[in-house]
Amino acid sequence: MDSPAFDAIFHPKSAALIGASRDPRKWGFKISLNVIAEKFRGDFYLVNPQETEFLSRRVYPSVRDIPGPVELAIIVIPAPLVPMALKECGEKGIKAAVVITSGFSELSPEGEKLEREITGIAHERGIALVGPNTMGIYSADVKLHALMVPVAPFPGKISFVSQSGNLGVQLLTESRANEVGFQKFVSNGNEAMLHSEDYIEYFGRDPETRTIMVYLEGFKNPPRFLEIARRVSREKPVVLLKGGKTDSGARAALSHSGAMKSTRSISSAIFRQAGIIEVEDTTELLDVAKGFERLPVPRGPNVGIITGGGGWGVITTDGCELHGLRVPPLASGLTEDLRKIMPDFWPGGNPIDLVATGGSRVVHACIEKLTAEPYIDAVIALGVANRARAFADTPEAISQTLPPEMLKDKTQVMEEGDRKLAELVQEVIERHRKPIIAVSVAHPGLPVKEISPIVTYPTPERAVRVLARMYQYHQLQQKKI
Amino acid sequence: MDSPAFDAIFHPKSAALIGASRDPRKWGFKISLNVIAEKFRGDFYLVNPQETEFLSRRVYPSVRDIPGPVELAIIVIPAPLVPMALKECGEKGIKAAVVITSGFSELSPEGEKLEREITGIAHERGIALVGPNTMGIYSADVKLHALMVPVAPFPGKISFVSQSGNLGVQLLTESRANEVGFQKFVSNGNEAMLHSEDYIEYFGRDPETRTIMVYLEGFKNPPRFLEIARRVSREKPVVLLKGGKTDSGARAALSHSGAMKSTRSISSAIFRQAGIIEVEDTTELLDVAKGFERLPVPRGPNVGIITGGGGWGVITTDGCELHGLRVPPLASGLTEDLRKIMPDFWPGGNPIDLVATGGSRVVHACIEKLTAEPYIDAVIALGVANRARAFADTPEAISQTLPPEMLKDKTQVMEEGDRKLAELVQEVIERHRKPIIAVSVAHPGLPVKEISPIVTYPTPERAVRVLARMYQYHQLQQKKI
Repeated sequence: MDSPAFDAIFHPKSAALIGASRDPRKWGFKISLNVIAEKFRGDFYLVNPQETEFLSRRVYPSVRDIPGPVELAIIVIPAPLVPMALKECGEKGIKAAVVITSGFSELSPEGEKLEREITGIAHERGIALVGPNTMGIYSADVKLHALMVPVAPFPGKISFVSQSGNLGVQLLTESRANEVGFQKFVSNGNEAMLHSEDYIEYFGRDPETRTIMVYLEGFKNPPRFLEIARRVSREKPVVLLKGGKTDSGARAALSHSGAMKSTRSISSAIFRQAGIIEVEDTTELLDVAKGFERLPVPRGPNVGIITGGGGWGVITTDGCELHGLRVPPLASGLTEDLRKIMPDFWPGGNPIDLVATGGSRVVHACIEKLTAEPYIDAVIALGVANRARAFADTPEAISQTLPPEMLKDKTQVMEEGDRKLAELVQEVIERHRKPIIAVSVAHPGLPVKEISPIVTYPTPERAVRVLARMYQYHQLQQKKI
Repeated sequence: MDSPAFDAIFHPKSAALIGASRDPRKWGFKISLNVIAEKFRGDFYLVNPQETEFLSRRVYPSVRDIPGPVELAIIVIPAPLVPMALKECGEKGIKAAVVITSGFSELSPEGEKLEREITGIAHERGIALVGPNTMGIYSADVKLHALMVPVAPFPGKISFVSQSGNLGVQLLTESRANEVGFQKFVSNGNEAMLHSEDYIEYFGRDPETRTIMVYLEGFKNPPRFLEIARRVSREKPVVLLKGGKTDSGARAALSHSGAMKSTRSISSAIFRQAGIIEVEDTTELLDVAKGFERLPVPRGPNVGIITGGGGWGVITTDGCELHGLRVPPLASGLTEDLRKIMPDFWPGGNPIDLVATGGSRVVHACIEKLTAEPYIDAVIALGVANRARAFADTPEAISQTLPPEMLKDKTQVMEEGDRKLAELVQEVIERHRKPIIAVSVAHPGLPVKEISPIVTYPTPERAVRVLARMYQYHQLQQKKI
């Protein structure tokens, strides 16, 4: 499938919703609302022969009645009506169609026949077909939220193809709490025409996509998947979660996406050959994609750790070693350097325990000097970032007891400190092309409004898993040369 | 150590802070603030010969000048002054002391000597000694927040002993986002007198504690630890995370808590023999403790899954099988029953896919009937709980576009639905003594203000890990009989 077809899906200048509805319980309403509310950048038309107007918009009886050109159709009408609608799309010159409607091959032999019919029409009329039986698509660039549920991920550089619409949109929802940014998303449904590997290939050449995220239950064409993934993963990391890895899981997948059973070892071998980073769970899927999205890949296994306290340092060190990374001792030169700024009772060593001295001068020096060491490939900094956020989450009883001017001053000091640290970290990452990851615990008292400028995870173990997967990618890349 | 001594630590009627300070940068200020702001239920006295008054409270030159009786001393003065202060505590009849001060055996041979001295004084005067070098204690019952950092966990039934103060308070902070409730917490510091197993023993007989949570870097007395843990774990689940499992981690632990290196396999064998549930990471530590705190233990490995969508069901099934649980097929009687309320295209099977019919009648029927099946030991329900919360997190653009009366009606309907579901779930759990766990994704748009009435985790994989560990506890209990 060529780029113009994919551009019609993900960068359309105009789109029509066939099956728009004023009934708030219907998908035809929900999708209209999402697209309109999130301010799709192109022209957006509602189509339904039984309506004339809703959400302050004119409704057209058919796509043929729309005055301007239309590039993308989003279809939510009942399955038996889809063939006719697709033919009308062809007449209108529409280049791509997202068929949300279900009741095709996932349901019955009749549905399978209908799916073959619409695929035939799409091929004939040169329409790129997404689905059927998809939960829709999202594209940050043109602000297209053509999804069945109201989800507004942060814009970012990850593009995501999911063989489960439901899992896909749940992860997009969760992605905000995890400060992960998305560029494009597609729930690929029954894959009548476009398969997972087609989207992977397109994301591979999409300049806006830096990392590709995949949820996969089965392959339609394993050799082609392997060939494409291998090619793409040389350029960009492909992070994948396999559903249906176990016998029972595969049985569940069969009734869900009709995915053929492939044993865990076979699919994992294919992923490894393809240079894909296979992760173990949904949390890791989001975490690792975020790491690749925003950080340089570590060129070795050696991690330097800076910690606000002993226990977290121990846990982080354990995690590194358990995941194939190393926590090397510090060179004596660095230790001597640090002794000059550390209190007398600093015990030395890696992890570097800040022994409750966490002043910005010491923290900045540790980050700069540690990252510069030639035997250090990555740095994890525990408890030093996003301090204003932690402070804002001070228990209510305490904020009420403190003198107000003390609170205000401290907030400003902390915000300023966070800003300076973020600048330093970004600069040091650029200078050395090494990843620096922060850990700061989840604060439940206040909503996540934006992505922190420093890449941050809520637990040390999650930060470690990300680094381990990124190093795995580095190793895979080395083998290919 | 007898109960009265522990009661003086965790249920004191009166407490004094020795080293109280008006300087906001000092621990003597921070701890005063925490205790006062969080409204400790007993009498609270500030002690410092150089102060007379701050935070609107009188400051006494010495504990001996305090008019009423004092049960607990919290000590933050420099290490060399601690022996004298402890002697004065003895004269005052104080029964327990939490020594926050550091600079003892963790620092130097001189510190070690000083630690032996204060331990001797404490023994002599009959004072239960917590620490030294601790970050403090918390007790929900008497609302005592004698901690170096401002943390206010939800009150609950978990009691937690941590060999790392920093890791301990980070987990207490994070516990709010994870809706975990704590009864008691102690950072046990250098364990000069009281060891981890002493707290475990006390928590074991504490009627307010339902589950015991432990972070451990090393044993001072492995046989005694084993003996006590084995006894306690028969009555209550003991959930433990070991720090320093790897060579590098053990090296880090040595410089942190002075914990002796014990290889991973040796410590794990001890834990297994003791009936302890050893977990892999901090997330699991909180998650599993929460499961034991609030749910009955499953009596078998068979899980029934209810899911709002196929992909999550697949992932959950994989998770169960990978962690030693099973997802059995449904009996034909149940399938026939469910067909009566499900749409024609319901594919059947376990996971029970709600195929977007999520009305409360169907959800309630699924939960009731599935839990009642004799071959089902536990239920995981994906995407059905806390819907008002998800709805409240609707993207701003969408809430602004919707007619306001539609938003209001829907919020009320969802809140009412959540309430009814919670009632049903609690009733069904009681009736069958089987755990029911909900999964609903983290919503970043709004703060966590309370613990949901249904036990909920943000990802299916985390829910599965909890069930697997709870089933492991059941198996350990069976073996003991």
